Amino acid sequence: MSPVPDFCLSFCASTVFCNQYAWYNRYRQVLPGCLTVLQTIIKMSDQGATPIPSTAPPPTIGRPPKVDNRGRTSGPIDSSNLEAKDIPEIEYFAAPGPRGYPPMTGFLDIWDVDMMKGQNESNKIDHHTNLYHSDNLIVRRGQEFQVKITFNRPYKPNEDKIAVEFVIGSNPQYSKGTYIPVFPTKARQSYWGGHITQTNDNVITMGITPAASCIVGKYHLYIAVQTPFGIRRTKRENSRDLYILFNPWAADDAVFLYDEEERQECVMNEMGIIYHGAYDDISERNWNYGQFNYGVLDACLYIMDRSEMPITNRGDPIKVTRKASAMMNSHDDEGVLVGNWSGDYTYGVAPTSWTGSTDILLSYASSKMPVSYAQCWVYAAVFNTFLRCLGIPSRVVTNYYSAHDNDGNLKIDIILNDNGRVDRSRTKDSIWNYHCWNECYMSRPDLPPGFGGWQVVDATPQETSDGMYRCGPASVLAIKHGEICFPFDAAFVFAEVNSDVVFYSRKNDGTMETVKVNQTHVGRMVLTKAAGSEGRRDLIDQYKFPEGSPEERTVLEKAEEFGCKREKSTLPVADVDVVLPTLEISVGDDFEFSVEFVNSSDQKRTVDAYISGSVVYYTGVSGKEFLLKTPTVTIQAQKSVKELMTVESRNYIDHLVEQANLHFIVTGKIRETGRIVTAMKVIALHNPKLTVELTGSGKVNEEMMATVQFTNPFSINLESVYLRMEGPGVMEPKSRYYSLIPGGSSLTWTEPFTPQRAGKTRLFATLDCSGLRQVCGQASITINL
Amino acid sequence: MSPVPDFCLSFCASTVFCNQYAWYNRYRQVLPGCLTVLQTIIKMSDQGATPIPSTAPPPTIGRPPKVDNRGRTSGPIDSSNLEAKDIPEIEYFAAPGPRGYPPMTGFLDIWDVDMMKGQNESNKIDHHTNLYHSDNLIVRRGQEFQVKITFNRPYKPNEDKIAVEFVIGSNPQYSKGTYIPVFPTKARQSYWGGHITQTNDNVITMGITPAASCIVGKYHLYIAVQTPFGIRRTKRENSRDLYILFNPWAADDAVFLYDEEERQECVMNEMGIIYHGAYDDISERNWNYGQFNYGVLDACLYIMDRSEMPITNRGDPIKVTRKASAMMNSHDDEGVLVGNWSGDYTYGVAPTSWTGSTDILLSYASSKMPVSYAQCWVYAAVFNTFLRCLGIPSRVVTNYYSAHDNDGNLKIDIILNDNGRVDRSRTKDSIWNYHCWNECYMSRPDLPPGFGGWQVVDATPQETSDGMYRCGPASVLAIKHGEICFPFDAAFVFAEVNSDVVFYSRKNDGTMETVKVNQTHVGRMVLTKAAGSEGRRDLIDQYKFPEGSPEERTVLEKAEEFGCKREKSTLPVADVDVVLPTLEISVGDDFEFSVEFVNSSDQKRTVDAYISGSVVYYTGVSGKEFLLKTPTVTIQAQKSVKELMTVESRNYIDHLVEQANLHFIVTGKIRETGRIVTAMKVIALHNPKLTVELTGSGKVNEEMMATVQFTNPFSINLESVYLRMEGPGVMEPKSRYYSLIPGGSSLTWTEPFTPQRAGKTRLFATLDCSGLRQVCGQASITINL
Repeated sequence: MSPVPDFCLSFCASTVFCNQYAWYNRYRQVLPGCLTVLQTIIKMSDQGATPIPSTAPPPTIGRPPKVDNRGRTSGPIDSSNLEAKDIPEIEYFAAPGPRGYPPMTGFLDIWDVDMMKGQNESNKIDHHTNLYHSDNLIVRRGQEFQVKITFNRPYKPNEDKIAVEFVIGSNPQYSKGTYIPVFPTKARQSYWGGHITQTNDNVITMGITPAASCIVGKYHLYIAVQTPFGIRRTKRENSRDLYILFNPWAADDAVFLYDEEERQECVMNEMGIIYHGAYDDISERNWNYGQFNYGVLDACLYIMDRSEMPITNRGDPIKVTRKASAMMNSHDDEGVLVGNWSGDYTYGVAPTSWTGSTDILLSYASSKMPVSYAQCWVYAAVFNTFLRCLGIPSRVVTNYYSAHDNDGNLKIDIILNDNGRVDRSRTKDSIWNYHCWNECYMSRPDLPPGFGGWQVVDATPQETSDGMYRCGPASVLAIKHGEICFPFDAAFVFAEVNSDVVFYSRKNDGTMETVKVNQTHVGRMVLTKAAGSEGRRDLIDQYKFPEGSPEERTVLEKAEEFGCKREKSTLPVADVDVVLPTLEISVGDDFEFSVEFVNSSDQKRTVDAYISGSVVYYTGVSGKEFLLKTPTVTIQAQKSVKELMTVESRNYIDHLVEQANLHFIVTGKIRETGRIVTAMKVIALHNPKLTVELTGSGKVNEEMMATVQFTNPFSINLESVYLRMEGPGVMEPKSRYYSLIPGGSSLTWTEPFTPQRAGKTRLFATLDCSGLRQVCGQASITINL
Repeated sequence: MSPVPDFCLSFCASTVFCNQYAWYNRYRQVLPGCLTVLQTIIKMSDQGATPIPSTAPPPTIGRPPKVDNRGRTSGPIDSSNLEAKDIPEIEYFAAPGPRGYPPMTGFLDIWDVDMMKGQNESNKIDHHTNLYHSDNLIVRRGQEFQVKITFNRPYKPNEDKIAVEFVIGSNPQYSKGTYIPVFPTKARQSYWGGHITQTNDNVITMGITPAASCIVGKYHLYIAVQTPFGIRRTKRENSRDLYILFNPWAADDAVFLYDEEERQECVMNEMGIIYHGAYDDISERNWNYGQFNYGVLDACLYIMDRSEMPITNRGDPIKVTRKASAMMNSHDDEGVLVGNWSGDYTYGVAPTSWTGSTDILLSYASSKMPVSYAQCWVYAAVFNTFLRCLGIPSRVVTNYYSAHDNDGNLKIDIILNDNGRVDRSRTKDSIWNYHCWNECYMSRPDLPPGFGGWQVVDATPQETSDGMYRCGPASVLAIKHGEICFPFDAAFVFAEVNSDVVFYSRKNDGTMETVKVNQTHVGRMVLTKAAGSEGRRDLIDQYKFPEGSPEERTVLEKAEEFGCKREKSTLPVADVDVVLPTLEISVGDDFEFSVEFVNSSDQKRTVDAYISGSVVYYTGVSGKEFLLKTPTVTIQAQKSVKELMTVESRNYIDHLVEQANLHFIVTGKIRETGRIVTAMKVIALHNPKLTVELTGSGKVNEEMMATVQFTNPFSINLESVYLRMEGPGVMEPKSRYYSLIPGGSSLTWTEPFTPQRAGKTRLFATLDCSGLRQVCGQASITINL
């Protein structure tokens, strides 16, 4: 063994390792887990070779060294929009002659370029972009816009050669669609057409139509004059940068949507309503999508840059939405939002506390760090802002009783013990009370004809989905027809609306027997805000054929052929039904809960029942059980019996989680037949409300006042309370903190605001603290000019 | 403004920030980019509320806090095979009575469990697992194996209740297939059957058949005795752990392969041949897959654990192969291999230097760190080991002229300038001389019927594939028929074998014109080692219909309908052809290169030609241009003219990269017609060889000698030279380091080895240094008992 060299000791704490300094010499690194790997050292070569470990590949400490693209690709992939490159002001066609370069003066000169971006110019009105708060021109692809160019002399169409050049990304190339010169021609063209619409002395107006499939993002604009010796360009100026968006109004665009009312709702509307609560007691959540707010468009482009999405893919709505569904969550890729369902939001904002997307997107773009915290509706709402901002029609939908985390299979397992009681330690699957995702509208050239239209995309990370933290676009029509092998992830969405709830009875020896299958519990309703009104629309018929129809059976069989696992036992139906009530209860109420046993047989039936009530997260995960009754109920033939019980608020109030849902589950065994009966119900307790009152003239640019009032209805104090308020077009997000609201006391928060634009809008406020979540209130207002 | 509190100063370097200590109070964190976000602080509330920033969501420093699964799921996802949980030795059926628990003694007692894992027992021979070096029993699913149980007294079938229990993962559950009790019954069963095959005094032999769809991995085995009071189990013992693998011999298994010769090749064969070089001058690379070597199976299970793949998915070959294609590369998920194409391998092993997979997999499993470095064949070879080790039939294939990094489109762009010369700064796409991927064999229940069979999986990270660092499984038949919307990633593989090479002429004003489309260059041949021989097999007819056939045209049209972009210009064919020679050249040779211009027209033609030769990476990325001639060639009607040039080794030898490929590209413009002519050719220079000689008896367990000889054929010295040698079943990986091999001198390395098992095998050696890569040699040998 050689002595330990000093340079080795200074790197490696382990002296066991030090006789292998040849290793150090070679790799300039020391391996932490080296002892395991380096088990043998081969003998010194008789030709004087230095020993190296015989089975050890040279490893690295920490992360592997950053490897560049040399030899792999001819250049780095262009995936940055916001850090784009300039192109040269002068480009000679040939190498310099003996006297150097020829002069480029004496040709046509450009004095001014007017992007015609005034609030009331056609570039904004016709392109439906006048609501964007931006210093730059924003237009939509596949539709003409105007640019006014002033020369040093009148333009001569037959002599002067000019081009309006559009450049995007760090490596502009004609063949990739990242460098586009547009020449004035007489006729209109289909691909990036240009023609002169007006000539007036030294000034021409040029109409330019970006291709309906062009890249969406921020372009630089240059005017180039071609001389015999080379090309001379205008200097780059920020004020001439322009954004080109998707265009649901252009028939050639992949996101074309024919219905103007839908376009107004799914592209232009900033005021959202997102549904939650229970399927038979629906609650609404206001949301300010804020897609036109200052900085939001840049934040959306930053998200794509951050994802390192190649620039060339950014004209394809399929690729853009798929990538964005991955980027909305922070899993894998340091995306926008950190998910948290734990109830502990100390280091961030509680998901129930947000009122809009603007804060979240601006914070992500400026801090370049994931924002805390989100649950499904926050993911869906911010994703909706992203989509509407870029011009892809989209809406947030809520699926009631959503099967989750079951890996695309069509079974949710609930395990009962031998007596018919739910075995809570062995029941791992959960049914979400509701789950929100997005639908966006586009053609699907990658699928067989007929599957374009609305597509599901879902940004909420799915825990068991084979490590896949993105979902969609999946064609809604493909889901309805069971074509679940079509990309992307149609099988997952299919399972969310079609799974069966399977009850097993577990025997002492560990084996299980299927005792009941409920085929109608999951996917009860898919709600979205109706276009053009504040009402709701149930989209369930877009996702499923009617329960029990022959089409439904065919579709489920087709899905099974594509590998979805389903419980196929045919079980005799129990002849006793259990019916649970529909109740509207406020937090803090005592209430009566009745369980009705209906005997539809011609004989007496005796049921040993378990009636259990527990608090539950909206994800279906159970918290504390606050009620357990085990009555034995005797029901005469063709009769029914009601078991009544009183639920007192003191039993549940201290255990409530988050959204204050109570879950009742009734199971039991019929003595006479041995059959199992079951029933389940979620009761979403109603929170107290905030009142929001508005005073003032209701005119643009005149100050008004909003007053939020809240009374703590409990005897307990509420601590560390956050209030938030915002309103599209009238008030930016505001918030307030109250360290204490004593039990029974009230607060009043008055905030001035100045409406920015005319129209119907709403102001909404939320109150949030760890003791009481998602308290909200709103006021509608019409602002006049 | 408040003064700066001390506790705040100690956290935040920015004194600008210090008046916002309420922020610190609330979130216990200070935001680095806070100034950008926190633009306003709302006024103090008149009710004594503390101020908070009005538009700032509370952010976090560094990574967001780790969020647990509380409220999201009812427990963590079970994704660890190797760190599994024990189940209790005693499990009572009821709570203790007034006298405590009843005694569990006096019932049947288990004295011994024999896993029957001897080298020649049927459990190993019938299950084709006798080659695995492992201390544990290894069997295949869907096929019976035997376990011998010794009791304290004869077993009474009608009274004693026993079960053989199989447990996998950290959260064993019957309904998830992670806890399986198998009871002895009289008849054989389909799902995890058990029956007593032999009874002999106190000893019974039980035959157990795991379900053909069961989870693949390492199980714990218990014997349970059921008493009236509860269950009593054997203690867990490592020696009773067993591995259950995929079973290509079982008709019910999703990986069933009917052909025994294919099974022997694609599951049992450890000695691989991987093709490289040029399509008309093919080279071979030996590879020791080593799937049966000690520790390799555990390493493969570790890879799945490391990926956090849910245990319940591990019986599905679609999910296993898809996940593994992501885990083989270190992108995103700290997977097995770090890719590097740069030529600088200072901190790792050069991709060309590896001789087998064992080193790589064992190093990854022990260091838990990605291993450096890989290029495509290393990814494919290690992936192949993983697949064969788990029992999924697989083979490595090599596609010659593979279209890459073009995002699934059917175009490779080559840009010529106005004169017809290649514009190297604007040509970004590349055609890989060859690319290796894997095919694996399985049924595809997720696709319409008919698309099972061989499936493409590819572990090489694809730079521009929308951030997707995994690929497949994609049905080969779906690729052939253009069904590229079927999952997973069929469109990418389709483009790799079907892209057109499109030549553009770039005009001065930046626009480009298509001048030639070559539809036959890409996807020339897909080679794999033939089953049962050392010959090759071309699989191209599995991927494509014959060039020019009506089926081929239909398929390409279908692919376009699914969104693949393709160049559709119909261009008049130039009437001059350029023909390049096929040459076999060794590194260091001077050679003659001829370019033949064939005029098929009835008129004289004059071509202004550019003949360029450059060194090139196997990825098609160009290095130094060492040859440029610009002859003007005049060809009479219906004649041909040869341009001859001599390439001297001194011109290229100092610029060679890696695999010593030379790329010749000829372009030109016909004066008479203005048409463009093109031709391309890769010449893979042959390296010197190692000679490997074996001496000795050729018998199992008798020492032999292997002698490797190499002569440096150059006048220059070779420095820091690594030699590696290994042979399946005869020699573990060995390596040697030589600091210097002077020009013209020879070395001899003699290594003793002791064959471990009988049969035909090979020893192969590689030599690798930065001056000379992938020198190899081999010797075949038959070992007798």
